Amino acid sequence: MNEGHRLAWLRLARSEGIGPVTFARLIETYGQPERALAAVPDLARRGGRRTPLKLASEDDAARELDAAHTTGARLLIWTDPDFPPLLRAVDPAPPLIYTLGDPKILARRAVAIVGARNASAGGRKLAEDIAAGLGAASLLVVSGLARGIDTAAHNGAVATGTAAVLAGGVDNVYPPENARLHARIAAEGVIVSEMPPGTTPQAQHFPRRNRIISGLSLGTVVVEAAIGSGSLITARYALEQNREVFAVPGSPIDPRSRGCNDLIRQGATLTESADDVLSALQVQRPFALREDPAPHTPPDDDAIDAARPAILELLGPTPVPLDDIIRRSGLPAPTVLAILLELELGGRLHRTPGQTVALL
Amino acid sequence: MNEGHRLAWLRLARSEGIGPVTFARLIETYGQPERALAAVPDLARRGGRRTPLKLASEDDAARELDAAHTTGARLLIWTDPDFPPLLRAVDPAPPLIYTLGDPKILARRAVAIVGARNASAGGRKLAEDIAAGLGAASLLVVSGLARGIDTAAHNGAVATGTAAVLAGGVDNVYPPENARLHARIAAEGVIVSEMPPGTTPQAQHFPRRNRIISGLSLGTVVVEAAIGSGSLITARYALEQNREVFAVPGSPIDPRSRGCNDLIRQGATLTESADDVLSALQVQRPFALREDPAPHTPPDDDAIDAARPAILELLGPTPVPLDDIIRRSGLPAPTVLAILLELELGGRLHRTPGQTVALL
Repeated sequence: MNEGHRLAWLRLARSEGIGPVTFARLIETYGQPERALAAVPDLARRGGRRTPLKLASEDDAARELDAAHTTGARLLIWTDPDFPPLLRAVDPAPPLIYTLGDPKILARRAVAIVGARNASAGGRKLAEDIAAGLGAASLLVVSGLARGIDTAAHNGAVATGTAAVLAGGVDNVYPPENARLHARIAAEGVIVSEMPPGTTPQAQHFPRRNRIISGLSLGTVVVEAAIGSGSLITARYALEQNREVFAVPGSPIDPRSRGCNDLIRQGATLTESADDVLSALQVQRPFALREDPAPHTPPDDDAIDAARPAILELLGPTPVPLDDIIRRSGLPAPTVLAILLELELGGRLHRTPGQTVALL
Repeated sequence: MNEGHRLAWLRLARSEGIGPVTFARLIETYGQPERALAAVPDLARRGGRRTPLKLASEDDAARELDAAHTTGARLLIWTDPDFPPLLRAVDPAPPLIYTLGDPKILARRAVAIVGARNASAGGRKLAEDIAAGLGAASLLVVSGLARGIDTAAHNGAVATGTAAVLAGGVDNVYPPENARLHARIAAEGVIVSEMPPGTTPQAQHFPRRNRIISGLSLGTVVVEAAIGSGSLITARYALEQNREVFAVPGSPIDPRSRGCNDLIRQGATLTESADDVLSALQVQRPFALREDPAPHTPPDDDAIDAARPAILELLGPTPVPLDDIIRRSGLPAPTVLAILLELELGGRLHRTPGQTVALL
């Protein structure tokens, strides 16, 4: 898309009284941002506006873009291939985002982790572990770079990939103790914001930030959230966006557990570990060799020798479902499977695609 | 994972009588490939084998790996972060694959397109268009680099990302007229095979190749397939793997349509374009500006002026669902939406999250 389209897009998004719903409606109606910009003053007048609606000027938009490029930030609008597809699917999608770092990682499947700023040590540990587990399964971990749970989540996933969504500009470092984490995410992950670089966050920016956190993600995990906290707003956005909500339960004695317990009561998935999230999202777990064979030691040879005749009796040249053999043998499944494995390696058993077995 | 584990893994996979099911069972039972290798001879003997089972030697495995590295191929086993997650989810997953090119693109969401070698010109055009449409939506397009539909599918997606799965080694160029396409996919996409580099494909390799094509993909699109053709085997694997099957219908007069029409009769999604695939997989379409505003021209001003009083009558300070306003007005939705847009820009209308509107 040419620079003219981009500037017009930015002007439209920054004009007075044009929120995401109106922006989407204007682009849908007029097809191109220039045509929408040209139509807006007349539409506003016809809609009963007394003073002319103030459009963002081309100079203002060009200045914003120049300043952004100086800080290394990149503007992404809907037509950019790097605009994250899940965020585009939000209705209405934010008209634009700025990124600092590698926007391409936003195409990875992502899960958000959010929670209390004044989190307990246990809560922070859980958030970090869940983030690391999701990262090990190649998921991008999204959070808001706030104190507490957010910081723990980013720390757990900074090695595998994390995205921090800020309420202020992508270059706005807050809280100050996260300066190094901010720099590392900008270098190895990505920082995202709807606001122009240089913006200091205001209270009204946070809901829009939270809506992007959930919108970038297949689901949002809430770890410690008091009733009425911002994390519950993120969870509500996730529901509105038809995304999953996960909540880590806690003791009713701690007020920081109330929000999560409430979410579970309303249908959120009770979550104790990354595995709970991976299962619900049907994400393949990373495969690892077992250092210790103990918990899965094959059945001992005596047990197998004793059971083999019964299994051979149940097998024949006609393929039989594996499940039937196990059920009819009355033997533990590991014993039956061990015998079948031996017979197969012995060249006496044939397996067919539909989980059936036959003697050769 | 250390080189010793990798060599043992390769030896186990290349040993006599150890197919994917047995391989998976051995790794599950013994936790590590070395322990499985050590156990196999005894298991085979106990299973009734008369001559000792021949294990692949460490030298053979090292030679295979060296030769692979010389051709630029990379071995991926389950423990490698780049082993494609969807292929790992297949039961049983192939123990290993070789890749030539960029294995990281296999982490992208993928759709397979397969079909007749002796495809019609129309079929090839459809395959190329569907591939280009899927590519524009950032999907990876998977196929088998055969003549006809496969070639057309790769050509349609080579600019956006394509994976070619071969029955022979990744360096085996076939058919000869695809030499340039093979080179381009190796440079810009990825070539995949279960066989060692240098392998000339045999008939028995093709079903395993087809199983990887469907296994890498969220769904398989079949474009022209005669009854009994290899493409229908790929479709059957896709079903076994709980993936989607898409089929492009055709005239009953052409025998190349029979397989696809049959698939549709059995429940495959009737597919005419990439959009049908994107809808079924809930993939976000790429967003593009409209050059021509004509088909969506806003309603004319006279119609809006005539309808405005009725809409204002229906609105009040209490938020009302947008759908109710449209229904109760009895007016065309575009007219109502245009009036609401004007009122909003005029500063007289407030929208709330749940698609409700109120007069200010």
